[in-house]
Amino acid sequence: MDVQEDETLADGYKLKLNSYDLGVDIELADAIQRIRFEHPEVRAVVITSLKPRIFCAGANIYMLGTSSHAFKVNFCKFTNETRCTIEDDSHHSGRRYIAALNGTASGGGYELAIACDEIYLVDDGNSAVSLPEVPLLGVLPGTGGLTRLVDKRKVRRDRADVFSTLAEGLKGKRAKEWGLIDDTFPTSKFPEAIADLVTQAVSLRAADNNPDATNDETQTNSLRYSGIKLNPLEVESTVDSRNYKNVSLKLYRDRRYADLTVRGPESNLPASPEEIQKLGDAYWPLRAFRELDDALLHLRVNEPEIGLVCIRTAGSIDDVLAVDQALAANRDHWLVSEITLQMARTLRRLDLTAKSFFTIVEPGSCFAGNLLELLLASDRSYMLNNPDEKIELAASELNAGAFPMNNGLTRLQSRFLSEPERAAEVLAVKDTLDTEAAEAAGLITFAPDDLDWEDEIRLAIEERTSLSPDALTGMEASLRFAGPETMDTKIYGRLTAWQNWIFQRPNAVGPNGALTNYGKPTQAQFDFKRT
Amino acid sequence: MDVQEDETLADGYKLKLNSYDLGVDIELADAIQRIRFEHPEVRAVVITSLKPRIFCAGANIYMLGTSSHAFKVNFCKFTNETRCTIEDDSHHSGRRYIAALNGTASGGGYELAIACDEIYLVDDGNSAVSLPEVPLLGVLPGTGGLTRLVDKRKVRRDRADVFSTLAEGLKGKRAKEWGLIDDTFPTSKFPEAIADLVTQAVSLRAADNNPDATNDETQTNSLRYSGIKLNPLEVESTVDSRNYKNVSLKLYRDRRYADLTVRGPESNLPASPEEIQKLGDAYWPLRAFRELDDALLHLRVNEPEIGLVCIRTAGSIDDVLAVDQALAANRDHWLVSEITLQMARTLRRLDLTAKSFFTIVEPGSCFAGNLLELLLASDRSYMLNNPDEKIELAASELNAGAFPMNNGLTRLQSRFLSEPERAAEVLAVKDTLDTEAAEAAGLITFAPDDLDWEDEIRLAIEERTSLSPDALTGMEASLRFAGPETMDTKIYGRLTAWQNWIFQRPNAVGPNGALTNYGKPTQAQFDFKRT
Repeated sequence: MDVQEDETLADGYKLKLNSYDLGVDIELADAIQRIRFEHPEVRAVVITSLKPRIFCAGANIYMLGTSSHAFKVNFCKFTNETRCTIEDDSHHSGRRYIAALNGTASGGGYELAIACDEIYLVDDGNSAVSLPEVPLLGVLPGTGGLTRLVDKRKVRRDRADVFSTLAEGLKGKRAKEWGLIDDTFPTSKFPEAIADLVTQAVSLRAADNNPDATNDETQTNSLRYSGIKLNPLEVESTVDSRNYKNVSLKLYRDRRYADLTVRGPESNLPASPEEIQKLGDAYWPLRAFRELDDALLHLRVNEPEIGLVCIRTAGSIDDVLAVDQALAANRDHWLVSEITLQMARTLRRLDLTAKSFFTIVEPGSCFAGNLLELLLASDRSYMLNNPDEKIELAASELNAGAFPMNNGLTRLQSRFLSEPERAAEVLAVKDTLDTEAAEAAGLITFAPDDLDWEDEIRLAIEERTSLSPDALTGMEASLRFAGPETMDTKIYGRLTAWQNWIFQRPNAVGPNGALTNYGKPTQAQFDFKRT
Repeated sequence: MDVQEDETLADGYKLKLNSYDLGVDIELADAIQRIRFEHPEVRAVVITSLKPRIFCAGANIYMLGTSSHAFKVNFCKFTNETRCTIEDDSHHSGRRYIAALNGTASGGGYELAIACDEIYLVDDGNSAVSLPEVPLLGVLPGTGGLTRLVDKRKVRRDRADVFSTLAEGLKGKRAKEWGLIDDTFPTSKFPEAIADLVTQAVSLRAADNNPDATNDETQTNSLRYSGIKLNPLEVESTVDSRNYKNVSLKLYRDRRYADLTVRGPESNLPASPEEIQKLGDAYWPLRAFRELDDALLHLRVNEPEIGLVCIRTAGSIDDVLAVDQALAANRDHWLVSEITLQMARTLRRLDLTAKSFFTIVEPGSCFAGNLLELLLASDRSYMLNNPDEKIELAASELNAGAFPMNNGLTRLQSRFLSEPERAAEVLAVKDTLDTEAAEAAGLITFAPDDLDWEDEIRLAIEERTSLSPDALTGMEASLRFAGPETMDTKIYGRLTAWQNWIFQRPNAVGPNGALTNYGKPTQAQFDFKRT
């Protein structure tokens, strides 16, 4: 266990970390998810270190030095998704995240700290914050570090330049003056100061959440919260498949593609918040999207040669729309809100997955409402055109804003940048859309008829999986996020790309590179040509 | 000559290109600059091909396949700066750019077309537009191609996906339907149709430019235009220096840094538009910034091992401020406007140069107004703190918006993202700022005193030039452009970074890579792991 939980703070929750690597990050992501669902009454989360004197430093350097390029890229992406979850949770669910740096926070450790709302550093004459990636390792603090420095904390760029090239970092006074931390406290007063700050944050957030409510009501609401249990997912694996309750993954490794099928909900699911809470983690949208999330992570990390994922659905459009109606009607209920936010994050994980996605719409599919987002997130969609069969799509009110992309737009808005009125037109359709209507509405890419269908899908798969996987990754990342940029798109689209490049360079990973030689008696030797 | 100019169109100007590579691009950039200064009456520019049937295709593939990574990156950056100049010129100087594709426009050729305001394709049953980089070469249309596709022309993302993976591209009808071109004309009617469109564009732009003026006045203004001659720059080179009239570059190759000194203007320069026009290209701001531009390009392409540039100035603050006053007072005059736009573009070239920049402020320097931008564009600034000497900075009204960065902000705004009022405070200072005042105003990074000065500068240079040049390139690109993103920052910061990465990958440039094997009987063989 590299993450320990400690529930002793009133309405606060303490996460204690042990150094920093992918293991810690998975546990951290898990702990945050469990706080959200199992302890919804928690209003503040303190992230601190198990080891006094060192908050987070160093461990991941060896991981970065020894692992494959693909692993590094996946690690950085997952880590940053966890950091974005912290920021998303703070923004939407009203929990305040406090980084209590009881020792030096270096590299990934400081990057985690700047994902929090507040940062406090112990003043013990020794502890510092630092981003030593450039001076020590020849790579970037590329998991959001540089971008959050100047875009979130708005540190002056010349100071950010000095800080990011200073291996030893900066201690309390100057770190505070430059905006790298919010405050500093002596060792003896540190625990007490953090406890006070938690109390303040809790009362601040309680007031924030219910601006119209009296304090009494807020208290009552807060007490009414009672979490649900998140059980581990059940999955059956074979050599070429992975089957969850609502999601199936079938791998065609020789053809480098996979079928990912999501099964829609049953009919007549309960629709009141009390009944939903009783269903807990068995409630379809929560379970199906947790399974989808797991399947995507599995594809990313364990199936590097799968280049294309064909997304399919099976079920009833009416039943999917009924779920969306229940979610929309109860959006103010804490659990429904958390479930919707979880669905939104899973869909963003899909947007950021470095695989091609084609959506295949056939008879028996149910791309409606929340599942229509899968089609909208895909690089292309193919819909069978056969008037003798029932093949339909449908929008719901959740497509109007419940699942924003990282660029802040809905997927419908991103799709129709040149004709914004089309997004509203799709949302205004009260009925389902058959293939012709869907094509006319601009929702699908190709609509082959029955005669061409099999050949066209087969050819599309063959063509896609024959292309350079690197070029596709860069192309998809560029085309998926048109329109406005946010801190998140900057981090994923811009900073990650620089990091990708630098991680490949001989100056980092060659025999004389900085990452290769870190911690060894040998010194890095650079090719100093600048590009 | 790969670019031919043809002045036969009334108020229009025709540029005929021969295929597409860096040579063409330098000539194109030069032709556009000469139109701006020598033919200001031109209201529309037609870009078309010398060779019938092929607009621009292919030639640069061999260049990309055979040149070094650094050359490719520099080529792509320069090329895109030229495209941004087209867009900037269209936006600010009211010239309309028309791509008349009299044959297939492929890769860089189509990327050039989408930098224009309008695109027309001949309908000869054969000609198409295409971006074959992904399917044929295993790299990206990374010089703005993908970003302009979805962000400028707002092509639907699934259609952009199909188009960017289709080696043969799309012909007239579908290209128009998908928004890739504006219209298509049969071969026989093509020249006439383009001539008509030029006439329309010219009258449209004339009206645009002077919304309050009557047509008569517009005509008169237009007739009053009379260009100046842009003479070639004079430069004396030695093995370790490059001396222009107002700019000197001194190279310390063994220490991997250079001193770049800009000399301020003489006293009592003429200040009326008539006198400025008479001075022509000898007028200090035009000549000094053209020289600076040339020095930056020289550093980029010919001095790859120079990692750090120390920027210095020599001259009188009052004389620099007098120039700014003349420019500000006559900003509506066509030549003053063009000069200011030229200065702004040069400063953006500096922002985008992959070298570290430190500004060194010493006695005798003149970092004021337009030259203060050099300090604000630097990664750091060092200002000597010696009360016995006169060492000062000064702002002018040109720092308030005449020289926007690619992110749309002024350099003062970008610097003070967390305290926006500080930008206004600096602009409100009517006097010069000495070292203490400049430090208090947040304008400088370090202010060492006389005793420490030499050592501190020497150490700063040594430290900077010891770091990984790749990590510095990524770090500086991330820290220089905080705040909002625009299409330009997306292209340079996001798309270029992806391109950088992909250009290094074995799937592109390895022995089995697509770029290596293009045009050979051998086929690319990919490592299909996706990252």
